[in-house]
Amino acid sequence: MSYTLSQILENLSIDFTGSDIEIDGIHTLTEASPRELSFFSDPKYRDQLSKTQAGAVFVDAEHASLLPEGTIALITDEAYLNLAYASKYFAHTLTTKGGHPSLGEGCDIDKRVRFGHNVTVGANVTIMAGCYIGDNVTIGAGTLLHPNVTLYHHTVLGESCIIHSGTVIGSDGYGFAHTKQGEHIKIYQNGNVEIGDAVEIGANCTVDRAVFGTTYIRRGTKLDNLIQVGHNCDVGEHVLCASQVGLSGSTELGRNVVMGGQSGTSGHLKIEDFVTVVGRGGVTKSLAGGKMYGGFPAVEIRLWRKMQASLMRMVKGR
Amino acid sequence: MSYTLSQILENLSIDFTGSDIEIDGIHTLTEASPRELSFFSDPKYRDQLSKTQAGAVFVDAEHASLLPEGTIALITDEAYLNLAYASKYFAHTLTTKGGHPSLGEGCDIDKRVRFGHNVTVGANVTIMAGCYIGDNVTIGAGTLLHPNVTLYHHTVLGESCIIHSGTVIGSDGYGFAHTKQGEHIKIYQNGNVEIGDAVEIGANCTVDRAVFGTTYIRRGTKLDNLIQVGHNCDVGEHVLCASQVGLSGSTELGRNVVMGGQSGTSGHLKIEDFVTVVGRGGVTKSLAGGKMYGGFPAVEIRLWRKMQASLMRMVKGR
Amino acid sequence: MSYTLSQILENLSIDFTGSDIEIDGIHTLTEASPRELSFFSDPKYRDQLSKTQAGAVFVDAEHASLLPEGTIALITDEAYLNLAYASKYFAHTLTTKGGHPSLGEGCDIDKRVRFGHNVTVGANVTIMAGCYIGDNVTIGAGTLLHPNVTLYHHTVLGESCIIHSGTVIGSDGYGFAHTKQGEHIKIYQNGNVEIGDAVEIGANCTVDRAVFGTTYIRRGTKLDNLIQVGHNCDVGEHVLCASQVGLSGSTELGRNVVMGGQSGTSGHLKIEDFVTVVGRGGVTKSLAGGKMYGGFPAVEIRLWRKMQASLMRMVKGR
Repeated sequence: MSYTLSQILENLSIDFTGSDIEIDGIHTLTEASPRELSFFSDPKYRDQLSKTQAGAVFVDAEHASLLPEGTIALITDEAYLNLAYASKYFAHTLTTKGGHPSLGEGCDIDKRVRFGHNVTVGANVTIMAGCYIGDNVTIGAGTLLHPNVTLYHHTVLGESCIIHSGTVIGSDGYGFAHTKQGEHIKIYQNGNVEIGDAVEIGANCTVDRAVFGTTYIRRGTKLDNLIQVGHNCDVGEHVLCASQVGLSGSTELGRNVVMGGQSGTSGHLKIEDFVTVVGRGGVTKSLAGGKMYGGFPAVEIRLWRKMQASLMRMVKGR
Repeated sequence: MSYTLSQILENLSIDFTGSDIEIDGIHTLTEASPRELSFFSDPKYRDQLSKTQAGAVFVDAEHASLLPEGTIALITDEAYLNLAYASKYFAHTLTTKGGHPSLGEGCDIDKRVRFGHNVTVGANVTIMAGCYIGDNVTIGAGTLLHPNVTLYHHTVLGESCIIHSGTVIGSDGYGFAHTKQGEHIKIYQNGNVEIGDAVEIGANCTVDRAVFGTTYIRRGTKLDNLIQVGHNCDVGEHVLCASQVGLSGSTELGRNVVMGGQSGTSGHLKIEDFVTVVGRGGVTKSLAGGKMYGGFPAVEIRLWRKMQASLMRMVKGR
Repeated sequence: MSYTLSQILENLSIDFTGSDIEIDGIHTLTEASPRELSFFSDPKYRDQLSKTQAGAVFVDAEHASLLPEGTIALITDEAYLNLAYASKYFAHTLTTKGGHPSLGEGCDIDKRVRFGHNVTVGANVTIMAGCYIGDNVTIGAGTLLHPNVTLYHHTVLGESCIIHSGTVIGSDGYGFAHTKQGEHIKIYQNGNVEIGDAVEIGANCTVDRAVFGTTYIRRGTKLDNLIQVGHNCDVGEHVLCASQVGLSGSTELGRNVVMGGQSGTSGHLKIEDFVTVVGRGGVTKSLAGGKMYGGFPAVEIRLWRKMQASLMRMVKGR
């Protein structure tokens, strides 16, 4: 699926100079290729402008001159909003037209499973009634999907995984640009989800696809029920998340991180290897590895316990 | 569906004077019509008694004299409990008998979608496998239901909406009266849900139908995953709710309100236009518009930050 | 399904003395029968060792001598890990092969409901489209399952229950043993869930099956939406849980306990009869009956309110 740049800009009030180019996707400044569109909306990423390999970039007039020679500047005060409009061109078209999956040996697939096009299923996979497997999904050998699981298009599931009922993998990340009138314009979420081998995900969880690129849950990780994994998270190997944990977009968890029940994270932060966040912990900053944290905002557990003790003394009259 | 008042009272120990009337529903004192039943169980609503247009009202002996002349007093010490018993008469009967929906042009509907009776679907609607569309549901043009969405009876969905997998709209609100023995008697939830145009709702959310009247999610609002919207909420236009937000019953959100992840509200309060509640905020009182709030109980963000700083100084020995 | 002890130990580096025995399950030290395997991994349960009736027990060398004469000691430094490996032998094999349920009179069952083997359904039960009813499930008379409910194998549902859409009952509890390399080994959850009469469970809830034995939700209890009930919980009669409550494994709630929205509990604790935990309360210890608690860690509500008032005075400069 590709469009010329001029097609994409047809309904936007943006001109460009130079010859028209073919665009087949959207990505960040650092990841975009010459056939991809990108955007610049946060001065924090200034350094990335001059190094981008994107074919064209939505950018404000002030920063346009920083772009490398080969990249077309699409000058606008509303780079993020225009990105949102452009993202629709690359959205996957969802239809009810299904296909026949390529099945490995020894699979046990219920008749009431619906497959999209171009699905590949490894050997000895069990898929129970009511599951929906979207276009271009891959499922590794020995994996088990309990009833009523939904895998959106382009999801990659590893081997020997167990996914419990009601869980949704690959739903759209929560991403919107905003008009001056206060409307929210969808940024189509054109990335996907990849889940490693030996991952178990409990019931009624939600794992959002990436806006660009991939949301990862890496091998050996085990999630309990009713957990939210936001778009572009990278959940490391052998992580444990108890029930009702919420990971905001672009959270990175190292290996063997443990998140207690009802804990959560703000987005765009990193929790290093072997961290434990106790139940209810609310993580607002990146956390150094190998320690235990608690409270909201989460601090080292020792500090949090001291705080609780002080509060208790205070109300009990010391 | 209508019953005589005497039919409804048949198994309750309540008498009334005057001629029998036809009753076709239940509503609050302010909204009830002469063919509807109402109830009085909270002295706070004393003023509403004398102005009600209800045909009959469950009311205690002390307040019965406040009713207008045309309204029948149903005198009882347990008005709310009797309302619960009466509510069953007006419950929608759920059956597996389906119907053929009225479809607009250009729809793409999976064969594994089950429709109730009297469903109306606008043009260019896509409904994926495993969805259930209850009796008397209306779906606006251009709307997309991802796989395994459930719409209970009488739900109204606007145009150009996107509903992600696993989401349930129109499930019963959480309403019970209590017997003196500690049992909980269901108040049948006979209202519905109406969702405006251009609303997007993430995966595995729950939006409860109103007990009477309607639960609203208004145009342009975007909900993330695993969100609870309680019965009789009124979520304004262009609201944003991040993942795992919980709105208790009868919460009113103004336009462009932003609720951070895992935030929540107590019931029966109003959050005015352009308020932001940061992640984890727990709102226990109505909030004035245009400001940012955080913490639990939620206060202005400046105060909450000051509180956090004080606590930190306290435990770190100042 | 039974195995000889030597079959179960075939791939584990554990020897035993004495004659081989037949094993048909796994249970705790106090509950295990002579045909069951058990384990000892916490010195807290030292007293249970000498009284166990288990046929064989994974136990460390230090404590093995405490076992009664008739019980075979399976000596290992990693009792819990070996239990995990052994648990797989007794896991229910999930297949898509269904059966025809035994139906009582007057049932209304959608054609798009999938039944496992050996399902028993009482009279006047309604099961809507998209539900999955696993092997050996029993459903009591007059119960209603809304669309897209999943009941895992061996679930027992009482009479006159209402289960809302998207709810999953009997999914695996969250239980893993850990290798020295940091991998998590599944403890197969071979217990079940039993739900009493007149229970109502809202939309998109999750109720996990017990690891051994049974997770109970007792008669008359009403759960709102998006609630997690961990494995081996025992939720008493006439309990109320508002939306998004999370009960960790082995939580015991007495009768008429009320849990406010977004409240939660640590595992292995008891909340006595007639306790109310207000919204957001985080319970970390057992709570004495008949009182109201709040905050995190939850304390008596009076204390919590005092704490909030003190904090407010502190930041407002007294």
